[in-house]
Amino acid sequence: MSLREDGPAALDWVASYLERVRDLPALAQVSPGEIRTALPVSPPEQGEEFAAVLRDLDDVLLRGLTHWQSPRFFAYFSTTGSEAAILADLLAAGLNQVGILWRTSPALQELEEVTLGWLAELLGLPSGWHGHLEQGASVGTLGALAAAREAKPGHVLASEHAHSSVERACRLLGMELRKVPVDDGFRLRPDALELDGASAVVATVGTTSTTSVDPVSAVVERCAPVGVWVHVDAAYAGSAMVCPELRWAFEGIEGVDSLVVNPHKWLLTTQGCSAFWTRRPDDLRAAFSLVPEYLRTSDEVASFSEYSVELGRGFRALKLWAVLRCYGREGLQEAIRNGIRLAELFEGWVREQPGWELCAPRPFSVVCFRREGSDEENEALLERVNAGGEVFLSGTRLNGRFVLRLAAGNARQTEDDVRVAWEVLQRCAR
Amino acid sequence: MSLREDGPAALDWVASYLERVRDLPALAQVSPGEIRTALPVSPPEQGEEFAAVLRDLDDVLLRGLTHWQSPRFFAYFSTTGSEAAILADLLAAGLNQVGILWRTSPALQELEEVTLGWLAELLGLPSGWHGHLEQGASVGTLGALAAAREAKPGHVLASEHAHSSVERACRLLGMELRKVPVDDGFRLRPDALELDGASAVVATVGTTSTTSVDPVSAVVERCAPVGVWVHVDAAYAGSAMVCPELRWAFEGIEGVDSLVVNPHKWLLTTQGCSAFWTRRPDDLRAAFSLVPEYLRTSDEVASFSEYSVELGRGFRALKLWAVLRCYGREGLQEAIRNGIRLAELFEGWVREQPGWELCAPRPFSVVCFRREGSDEENEALLERVNAGGEVFLSGTRLNGRFVLRLAAGNARQTEDDVRVAWEVLQRCAR
Repeated sequence: MSLREDGPAALDWVASYLERVRDLPALAQVSPGEIRTALPVSPPEQGEEFAAVLRDLDDVLLRGLTHWQSPRFFAYFSTTGSEAAILADLLAAGLNQVGILWRTSPALQELEEVTLGWLAELLGLPSGWHGHLEQGASVGTLGALAAAREAKPGHVLASEHAHSSVERACRLLGMELRKVPVDDGFRLRPDALELDGASAVVATVGTTSTTSVDPVSAVVERCAPVGVWVHVDAAYAGSAMVCPELRWAFEGIEGVDSLVVNPHKWLLTTQGCSAFWTRRPDDLRAAFSLVPEYLRTSDEVASFSEYSVELGRGFRALKLWAVLRCYGREGLQEAIRNGIRLAELFEGWVREQPGWELCAPRPFSVVCFRREGSDEENEALLERVNAGGEVFLSGTRLNGRFVLRLAAGNARQTEDDVRVAWEVLQRCAR
Repeated sequence: MSLREDGPAALDWVASYLERVRDLPALAQVSPGEIRTALPVSPPEQGEEFAAVLRDLDDVLLRGLTHWQSPRFFAYFSTTGSEAAILADLLAAGLNQVGILWRTSPALQELEEVTLGWLAELLGLPSGWHGHLEQGASVGTLGALAAAREAKPGHVLASEHAHSSVERACRLLGMELRKVPVDDGFRLRPDALELDGASAVVATVGTTSTTSVDPVSAVVERCAPVGVWVHVDAAYAGSAMVCPELRWAFEGIEGVDSLVVNPHKWLLTTQGCSAFWTRRPDDLRAAFSLVPEYLRTSDEVASFSEYSVELGRGFRALKLWAVLRCYGREGLQEAIRNGIRLAELFEGWVREQPGWELCAPRPFSVVCFRREGSDEENEALLERVNAGGEVFLSGTRLNGRFVLRLAAGNARQTEDDVRVAWEVLQRCAR
């Protein structure tokens, strides 16, 4: 096989996929094991043509995919792997860089520095922070809490709506996690923070269930005087800070110790692009730095591998750089505003329709709602909605009640897509 | 921009890159900051054409890249991002899957299961182990040690030649690492294992400095009776087990508790493809499993996110699947044997040439050697070799002495490439 012979077919496959993805079932309509049993149990002895891979992608795998690229995917968080990011991933695959030390890919490390600086500027962050990219926010949060523990051992505080990666990181690090109660807007209550003996507080800007915003400023005011590390998990909502009208959610951000934002959630990059910043890089480096003999060089530059769990990193910066360039500040703002406008629209329909209720404030692009009736009825409603495959929504629990979530934000999403979701919901509720 | 308009140029860029990469300086010939200062300090306000990204890739970034794809890259470990893997990465970027729960991408999870089964068969592993893919071996080893700690807390034992990721994982997990002495072949001495109070032993099959092989069978014999977890780090050499004549290195593997092998090192996939197996999945799951409300479903299938640090995973299996199909067992064997043959050839030249000496046994594709003279002279020699950019080699320390390493194994490498390395070395030594 060769790139020149087989590449055009692969490229065409992706282009066609994105053209037709809206019409594919948003949630895979297969049973457990169905894909597995359709595949051979053993690998081939001799090599096959790449065309066979493409053929099986259509014939075997496609029906087993849940289409995160579909504008009718409204579950969890809506993501968009943009064309710029897809082609940058192709370039990155071709280059196959491994950033370990600076010298193993100076351009990878320096582009990552520059691009993180660009993104910091776009999100209104202070300049001069150390920034790098991780595969996902879970690894970033693990790093932040390891640094906090290095600086000052103790327990970790986070709201009961914080992401499960906080609990997982605490378990790995052997740090006790204490859950902090929230107010009636699902926001961490700073007055409830038990800071005595604490190592870190994790504040979330855009929680997973409701996208509520913990009061960063108040958390910092309480933590800074007692030397407790403040880590902000803005994996989802951080990208929205490209819009000045949403910057209220980052009030006080200049005082935090570390921050994660996932461009692969709401800023048009493909998976594997989570931005991590800290204003205390020395603590982070102290938690991780180890330079074995086989990696000692005369390079005068600290390498990113001293700041993270992973030793070798891929050329993730390339896709973020491509996206920031191909969209520009205005294009990014437009994408964010489109998601918010569509969520607002849907929220209005729910509000005005008898028999439906909104269940949480909506700061960004996610609407929490339910149909009148029991939890079981709402769960059954969600199952019916998803069983058709026309749209895919997910649910959560708030104050003990089951609620549905509609996450808008796919950049290819239109009013029509959201209207289809609403129609399906109403039809399934009847 | 669009895939149909801009894709062909990106594809052509990658194809041309691979055609000319042999002639580019293997090690980037830039100074720290040179790439950074050539880039704008701020992101654009308006979006640009994708063509501008490609232009700057050539004009700004290219000279800052160390070319891991070059057949004249002999440093660390030689890797190959094959054409099959590159196109699979393009497909994966287009699909932009996020594997969290089974339902979020049944095909991702089931293809990962099947492909790990295929790879297990190719490497001669027992059937029935739990296998999944991680971004890199560092995360896999972290998971293994977390599972070991969950099963039985205690210290960790590994040879002084174990990878730095073991020490890093121990530091994160708060586990004490005790270094075990090696024999004169740089292999862990099983008789030196202090198993009392131990949680785990990490045995390395293919250490980073010399690719020495710890005696897995003897380690298992000592650990199994006392319930100490045996984790095997075969990140580099595991791929070589596709060749039956090299399987001696995996003797006893059926008795280990967990294992990492990186197809992105020596099995033709691009970065971000590290295979992890365990025969004790329940312990692994106990260390990680947390299912928050917003992820509860009626799916009857355990999801891979319960076995790993990360919550959402990319469609890594696609590239491994594409590579196993496009090469087949025979093609993979050929690639491994080619790397070993070239290393053997180089080793022979060093052995026969007065003034040069071999410094370690060579089980696979890496040769450790030095020129007569002091450490300083050898370090200076390595600097001269790398300064020309024709080839790139790295060094390490063995028994306190500085030695050079030549890592063969790039699938596009020929005898001619290795001969160039030898000529450059001899020229620079004069």
